[in-house]
Amino acid sequence: MLSIKPDQTRIKRDIMKFAEFVDPEEEGFTRISFSDQNLKAVEHMTALMETEAHLSVYIDTAGNLIGRREGRRPDAPSIMIGSHLDTVRAGGRFDGMAGVVAGLEVARILKEMDVMLQHPLEIVAFLAEEPSPFGLSTVGSRAMTGKLSPQSIHSLKDDQGRTLPQAIRQMGGDPSNLQQAKRSLTDIVAYLELHIEQGPFLEERNIPIGIVTGIVEIARGDVKVLGRNDHAGTTPMGNRHDALAAASEIVLALEATCKASSGIVGTIGKMDVFPNAVNVIPGLVKIGMELRCLDEEIIKDAIKKFKLELENIQHSRGIEISCETWTSSQKVIFDEVLVNLASATCDKLEIPYLLLPSGAGHDAGHLARITRAGMIFVPSKGGRSHCPEEWTDFDHIVRGTEVLGCLVGEIDKQDINEKEVNP
Amino acid sequence: MLSIKPDQTRIKRDIMKFAEFVDPEEEGFTRISFSDQNLKAVEHMTALMETEAHLSVYIDTAGNLIGRREGRRPDAPSIMIGSHLDTVRAGGRFDGMAGVVAGLEVARILKEMDVMLQHPLEIVAFLAEEPSPFGLSTVGSRAMTGKLSPQSIHSLKDDQGRTLPQAIRQMGGDPSNLQQAKRSLTDIVAYLELHIEQGPFLEERNIPIGIVTGIVEIARGDVKVLGRNDHAGTTPMGNRHDALAAASEIVLALEATCKASSGIVGTIGKMDVFPNAVNVIPGLVKIGMELRCLDEEIIKDAIKKFKLELENIQHSRGIEISCETWTSSQKVIFDEVLVNLASATCDKLEIPYLLLPSGAGHDAGHLARITRAGMIFVPSKGGRSHCPEEWTDFDHIVRGTEVLGCLVGEIDKQDINEKEVNP
Repeated sequence: MLSIKPDQTRIKRDIMKFAEFVDPEEEGFTRISFSDQNLKAVEHMTALMETEAHLSVYIDTAGNLIGRREGRRPDAPSIMIGSHLDTVRAGGRFDGMAGVVAGLEVARILKEMDVMLQHPLEIVAFLAEEPSPFGLSTVGSRAMTGKLSPQSIHSLKDDQGRTLPQAIRQMGGDPSNLQQAKRSLTDIVAYLELHIEQGPFLEERNIPIGIVTGIVEIARGDVKVLGRNDHAGTTPMGNRHDALAAASEIVLALEATCKASSGIVGTIGKMDVFPNAVNVIPGLVKIGMELRCLDEEIIKDAIKKFKLELENIQHSRGIEISCETWTSSQKVIFDEVLVNLASATCDKLEIPYLLLPSGAGHDAGHLARITRAGMIFVPSKGGRSHCPEEWTDFDHIVRGTEVLGCLVGEIDKQDINEKEVNP
Repeated sequence: MLSIKPDQTRIKRDIMKFAEFVDPEEEGFTRISFSDQNLKAVEHMTALMETEAHLSVYIDTAGNLIGRREGRRPDAPSIMIGSHLDTVRAGGRFDGMAGVVAGLEVARILKEMDVMLQHPLEIVAFLAEEPSPFGLSTVGSRAMTGKLSPQSIHSLKDDQGRTLPQAIRQMGGDPSNLQQAKRSLTDIVAYLELHIEQGPFLEERNIPIGIVTGIVEIARGDVKVLGRNDHAGTTPMGNRHDALAAASEIVLALEATCKASSGIVGTIGKMDVFPNAVNVIPGLVKIGMELRCLDEEIIKDAIKKFKLELENIQHSRGIEISCETWTSSQKVIFDEVLVNLASATCDKLEIPYLLLPSGAGHDAGHLARITRAGMIFVPSKGGRSHCPEEWTDFDHIVRGTEVLGCLVGEIDKQDINEKEVNP
């Protein structure tokens, strides 16, 4: 097996350096996609790829930064490692960045060991994985998997009136030739992504590596609770149709429904109260909710139970409740061959691991539609992410990078090219 | 007893006419204080007072419209009848307006009957009773009872940057001489106000007249619920510190506390959720609440019980809850002599009545600090107010005006001038 010994000092230096490319006017670590800070991070990553890993670096027409190391077989499809450089507002230092730096480190080690793989190796920093100012997330990986066209993006604007094509051009892309960024199984044999877990499972179980089995399905819902605006002083308790009291029962009903099942999470993250005045009994509450689970049957069942609760609340409070739900994001099941290969790699390295689903979406979810894809999770302290406290010990990133690099070596040895991919 | 026979046709004509002076760009009946529509209503009321009731009309320095009919005793203090012409946004046609029109009708009848009372009679349309664009309610009655000074109002601005003194001047007042609007027991022997009930008690009991015993105390509170923002997809149900789930328990706890007691109402009308995104577990919720009761001991007791519930929620959810409460408005107990006189008047007229508190504030609450004050309620359909559906049958307004006019006659006969007034 390929011997990969990541350099912790170098990994730490890089992650801490990138953490300086953040908006000084925002809290935490803020490097929104398409921002000046995002551009600086791309420039710095380009320099590292070129000078330390000797990769040939280019930006594809979709604005993805790609560093390529050729393989021995000139016509072989690439093994691709990727993640992203952008953050959410007031985010952390590891989400996305850990994965790109891990890829860079694997390329640096191959260069230093002077190992030439059979397959080309590509390290990708995808454009705009997090929700972007244009109302779209995973922009780069959507484009690479053929989900975007110049027509579908030309009218998307940020709040300064800049269009998404203009912004992609500023990031070095060529949005009028977006289809050139499209890739397929014939030129990518496998896609790998290291990412922080963003949940507490690995840390709670003291296990350093998660091998990701899939990405959960997301069902979203809008609930509208229509009561009656009444004067808060003159309306007796028994005569009220308080939409906020009903909405409160709804929040607790969703929580109870999800707690009673397993493997599912449900959240009411958005609630708007009308008229939202201290002396008026709320007449209307609008709720935005979501449910996530790897098993869509469990989601369906939870929605059914939740809707029964809504009926009870509606009747007991004399209030009108409407609820519309839809699948916002279909589940992804990662490639079994890669999951098995990753498990075998961990076994060989004697590193404990856990198979687990991802509750969050990733670029790997899109790549899984066109090639074999797999993900390695490393522990998140306290399960926290998308916040300044987001932290992963560098020991864990080193171990994750070791697994990642060794897995690249294992894939390179196999002949796993044929696969039916479900788009 | 004075025979007062109000003219329903005339009362209906007036109320329906004033309902035309509303903002066409707003829903329902919107005549916000200091608006063009408010000014038109003042002009129309001035014309009615002058041409139909032969009152001498002026606007005091605070912007209150006052129509005066002299009495036989030139040095006697006035009997004052008042209410207001402004509405809340998307309000109704009766709140305030019914009381001013009832006062006008009494003056018209006295003029037509050619009755000269011992005391002068003053009909007042108070300026800006509802929450005004300057963040202040009951502007006119506050000024008349000496609670406002040019210094205290000069920095209040609406969202167009207009100052309250500028706005009072536009309504015909003279804000630099605000103290000239101040009145006292020596020149007002009694203040009476007819108003719609805004609650369901009279209608539910099929009783046409309410004699108001007082105005409830209002306690307001701010509750801050500090949980933890977490990723809605990656944070298991058992690891959450969901501020909105805790806030939901808080809403239901206040409701249950008030339902378990009597004579008290409690409302959470305002709730703001942060960051209010569908995919983030809410980390912070801010709540604005209030409690109203004529008995401040019942309010104190309810707050105590509510705070115990907050502690339970705090501990069970691992969440930080802070709660600050204060008395926003002290209770008012209306003058016993007037309550008794009003009851006796109803008995003589053989009109059923009910003694009840007011859950809402009124100009009469301020007047009660400087003179004997009393209020007559007429039934609100469905207990609704501050909404376009607000309705009171004209039969009820006629009966209320009859009681009001007869009560003026009874006060005029008595010598009830001496009173200690608690400021």
